[in-house]
Amino acid sequence: MTKKMQAENIKEAIQWRKLIDVLLDSNQFADVVLQGGYVINTVTREIYEADVAMKGEHIVLVGDVSELIGDGTQVENVRGKFISPGFIDSHMHFESAMLTATEFSRLSIPTGTTTIINDPHEIGNVLGVHGMQEMIKEAKTLPNQILFTVPCAVPDAPGLETSGFDVNSKHMEELLNDPYVQGIGEIQSFSNIHPVYHHAPELIDDLIASVSYANRIGKTVEGNAPGLFGKELAAHIIGGGTHVSCHETTTKEEMMEKLRQGVSVFMREGSSQRNMAECIRAVTEEGMDSRRAILVSDDMVPEDLLKDGHMNDIIRRTIAEGVDPVEAIQMATINPATHFGFKDVGVLAAGKKANVAVISDLNEMVIDQVYLNGTLAAEKGEMTIELGSYAYPESVKQSVKVTPIKAEDLHIKASGSKARVRSIVGIPFQNLTGKQEFNLNVSNGVVQPCLQQDVLPLMVVERHGRTGNIGKAFINGFKLESGAIAESVAHDTHNIIVTGTNYEDMVTAVNRVIAMQGGIAMIKNGKVVGDLPLKVGGLISDELTGVELSEKIADLTRLASEELGCGMDVPFMHLSFWSLVTSPEWKITDMGLIDVDQFEVLSPVVEQGGSK
Amino acid sequence: MTKKMQAENIKEAIQWRKLIDVLLDSNQFADVVLQGGYVINTVTREIYEADVAMKGEHIVLVGDVSELIGDGTQVENVRGKFISPGFIDSHMHFESAMLTATEFSRLSIPTGTTTIINDPHEIGNVLGVHGMQEMIKEAKTLPNQILFTVPCAVPDAPGLETSGFDVNSKHMEELLNDPYVQGIGEIQSFSNIHPVYHHAPELIDDLIASVSYANRIGKTVEGNAPGLFGKELAAHIIGGGTHVSCHETTTKEEMMEKLRQGVSVFMREGSSQRNMAECIRAVTEEGMDSRRAILVSDDMVPEDLLKDGHMNDIIRRTIAEGVDPVEAIQMATINPATHFGFKDVGVLAAGKKANVAVISDLNEMVIDQVYLNGTLAAEKGEMTIELGSYAYPESVKQSVKVTPIKAEDLHIKASGSKARVRSIVGIPFQNLTGKQEFNLNVSNGVVQPCLQQDVLPLMVVERHGRTGNIGKAFINGFKLESGAIAESVAHDTHNIIVTGTNYEDMVTAVNRVIAMQGGIAMIKNGKVVGDLPLKVGGLISDELTGVELSEKIADLTRLASEELGCGMDVPFMHLSFWSLVTSPEWKITDMGLIDVDQFEVLSPVVEQGGSK
Repeated sequence: MTKKMQAENIKEAIQWRKLIDVLLDSNQFADVVLQGGYVINTVTREIYEADVAMKGEHIVLVGDVSELIGDGTQVENVRGKFISPGFIDSHMHFESAMLTATEFSRLSIPTGTTTIINDPHEIGNVLGVHGMQEMIKEAKTLPNQILFTVPCAVPDAPGLETSGFDVNSKHMEELLNDPYVQGIGEIQSFSNIHPVYHHAPELIDDLIASVSYANRIGKTVEGNAPGLFGKELAAHIIGGGTHVSCHETTTKEEMMEKLRQGVSVFMREGSSQRNMAECIRAVTEEGMDSRRAILVSDDMVPEDLLKDGHMNDIIRRTIAEGVDPVEAIQMATINPATHFGFKDVGVLAAGKKANVAVISDLNEMVIDQVYLNGTLAAEKGEMTIELGSYAYPESVKQSVKVTPIKAEDLHIKASGSKARVRSIVGIPFQNLTGKQEFNLNVSNGVVQPCLQQDVLPLMVVERHGRTGNIGKAFINGFKLESGAIAESVAHDTHNIIVTGTNYEDMVTAVNRVIAMQGGIAMIKNGKVVGDLPLKVGGLISDELTGVELSEKIADLTRLASEELGCGMDVPFMHLSFWSLVTSPEWKITDMGLIDVDQFEVLSPVVEQGGSK
Repeated sequence: MTKKMQAENIKEAIQWRKLIDVLLDSNQFADVVLQGGYVINTVTREIYEADVAMKGEHIVLVGDVSELIGDGTQVENVRGKFISPGFIDSHMHFESAMLTATEFSRLSIPTGTTTIINDPHEIGNVLGVHGMQEMIKEAKTLPNQILFTVPCAVPDAPGLETSGFDVNSKHMEELLNDPYVQGIGEIQSFSNIHPVYHHAPELIDDLIASVSYANRIGKTVEGNAPGLFGKELAAHIIGGGTHVSCHETTTKEEMMEKLRQGVSVFMREGSSQRNMAECIRAVTEEGMDSRRAILVSDDMVPEDLLKDGHMNDIIRRTIAEGVDPVEAIQMATINPATHFGFKDVGVLAAGKKANVAVISDLNEMVIDQVYLNGTLAAEKGEMTIELGSYAYPESVKQSVKVTPIKAEDLHIKASGSKARVRSIVGIPFQNLTGKQEFNLNVSNGVVQPCLQQDVLPLMVVERHGRTGNIGKAFINGFKLESGAIAESVAHDTHNIIVTGTNYEDMVTAVNRVIAMQGGIAMIKNGKVVGDLPLKVGGLISDELTGVELSEKIADLTRLASEELGCGMDVPFMHLSFWSLVTSPEWKITDMGLIDVDQFEVLSPVVEQGGSK
């Protein structure tokens, strides 16, 4: 045993001993007692009247705790209310909220979320191991439980996109041995198992090396298998070391197939993608055992956190689909705890972390109080403990490493007066896309946007200073009427993505993002309609609180609709997903239009010159 | 990464890669396919028609596997049969069967058991760390999966009994770091949490040191909490590091309480104790979620293995209590796998170990074939692979370290003609006992057995050469009519326990056990009626096969009944449990009659001299 282990051993032993003393020494008492509530038992799937006693950072007894109440015990009357283990979000990205872990926590703790498994995939794509370690450093300052599942393959699709840094099996030893690192995050490159196997077998070898190492040191591996069935799904599962999750399951049939193949299905129900209602039918209609059905947010915008909540809202919506409330709560407590092998959360029982949500309305999931490590951390939606604010170092704030571009850099060229082009089709609230061909006009050798057909140029400008690429394609479904929108949030490599009704506004938007060192910019007739600097990796603001950022984004969203006539909800998030090459069908990266299934780059122009 | 880890990493990576090749390379195929059966899906709790394909030691696909069948694939038609993950026995002792791991496996593999968690508690009490390591060494030679949960406190009750060796937190580093050691076994000393806390607090500190170390290195800890509720149960759970099991739960109310407190209840259903029918009522009558309900045998005699089977028989009996067959199978597959954190067994899915039971009759749990690591290991009850035999070294065969005793050594003395005595009351098929006082005759200063009242002397003779103690008490309920029975199997310290209708036969029986270097001896009128040498630690025979031992014990049992008139079923096992001081109420050790709840030694004689 190393000296450090001995010391940790003794620390833990003293904690246990103190709890046992409260239980067996008639002169020692609990610190806090929640009295007279209805306990939600996630092990037995029951609700019954019981008290919860806490000592230090732990629960010491659930049941009749009257003998543990002394003069110094703070007794909280929770009669008529429900007491639940704090909720677990098993897969999410702080970057999607554009918030620091601190500001995200300030919004999510009052909603009952006490454990977050964050995948620092976005900052990893921009800033590599250093960026992820800076985020982990922040999480270590916070009272809620934040663990990380780190990417083992950045970029997702080498040869099809350019990230700021590459991450592979060589980095796993350094990353995975941090105690705040739970394991490997979504193994995206393996989602496209068939094309990767046939076109980039070296990726598979590297991924398996990472996965085997993670298994060996007792860490977990998360999968992600959108649209996979049968032997392709099996190959994906094996590539992930056999115990994997998927958070991009979108149909009942997929849910059934994945549960049957042993996958933990992380039913996603965040701000931009909502798959739970479809997935849950495997439980509500087919009666499948729900032990591996888990609720996650994946991506949340701060406005939704403020308006509707976090995991409590996802549980509420699950109940509304006809799931028993306790079973729904299991999907955000014991089920994920079991998936990850957490022994100290997800259950209200002796010795577990005193992370507790007190619920005043079960079906509506109204959270009255939240305890973190035995301390009242939030009440009636407001934090009752100080979180401070967290400023990131300069080393993660200079991530846009390119100089301004010119309008002609963006032009999609074609000869003649007409061109048949390939267009990505945006699907509301999905990160997968459709594909369609359109006929567009060509003017002066440049293919023109077409508002009637809702087909606009869609570009990705490499911004990591590695290639200078600009990938070009079209998008249908964004319903923009004027101007342009650019942002440095563009999954997963986070180059600058831009679309617009004219090339001039598009280039201005891109250059505005470059000037801000990352962020979102909306331009109309050459003028800035609105913008938002995101200085941490071009992804996150460490200057705004969640409330401020939410207001800012609401403002930008309103401007996108009012000033640019954008007809798509949550426009910035949708835009940011059209460069995600790990979910079908067509996407765009700095290398061009990508056929995800074929793992190849397509030309945006199919035919040119004619008038067909 | 150490060199060894790198090598293991590469080995694992190559295995995964081979499986992926079978799935995605159209020129590679499965080794074995079970075609057309009904798959038992332990994740979704479903039965549906599907094939199972295996490659090497793993399952490669469950579903439609037609594309994986090549010229070299061995296709097994299992139409009309059920395909289940192999069964897990989560808590058992080879010593209870008096068999080596090899001979136990020869009987249990054909019944569908493919994973065994053995607790080498008995040999640990006799031979300490060395004895356990010798047993682990044997397990490593076997094709079924055998893991160990090792005791962290031997003896269970220091000061109340004498073991051959002591085991404590000092030995944990050496024991727990063996990859075949799953964790710490039943923390017996903590079952009596209240008396231990008040009378032997140093035990608690040492136990917590062991538990904290196990937690720290990712190993599990098994509890054992007979009769505990409320805060005593909570203290026990915390003492075990909060994620514990209990395999001595005997009532529905206890089952409910333990599941509610988060304990994994190992419903015991072995040869001498059968608790499932009572425990399962928490599921069948109260509708509790059964995810932490687990079936175990604890103690099996070879006769039962041969006659009724092993886990398959326990599952069958669970189905007979009204549990859905798949839910019952979950209790011996995915539920224990989840409890222990096994990622490679308990589920039929891609990448898992190809440990499979083919069942021809689901409700009767008739096992047709058993695959171990992808190889047909048993068919129609017979092994189809060679196991060899296993001989233990001499270092574990000289464990009886005392010289013969004399009759007067056993005498229970009293003055006058009558004595009021304390007698343990044996309860059929329970290892807990009752207590009662009786009036017995005294002759020449020695209390006499009384056949009318069925009250006999019960002694424990220390045999480890450490103290020379002889503990003395009485037993009611054994229903012996003549002669004496002695054995070196006497939980948990395994001194020599003896009872009989007269002191002369008792001393002869003890001396016969000493002469054999351990075993069972039955004496009548000074003559050996039957005996069985158990040379490995005085607990196990490595000379007889399971069938031979079973016949031998059946023979001895018949002789006990026919020659000694013993009216108790499974007499040797019952006798062996009356020295187990970790379950209530009265027990006997080499120190004397033990009041388990009070943690103290009682005199067997309450009053003497009078005729009351």
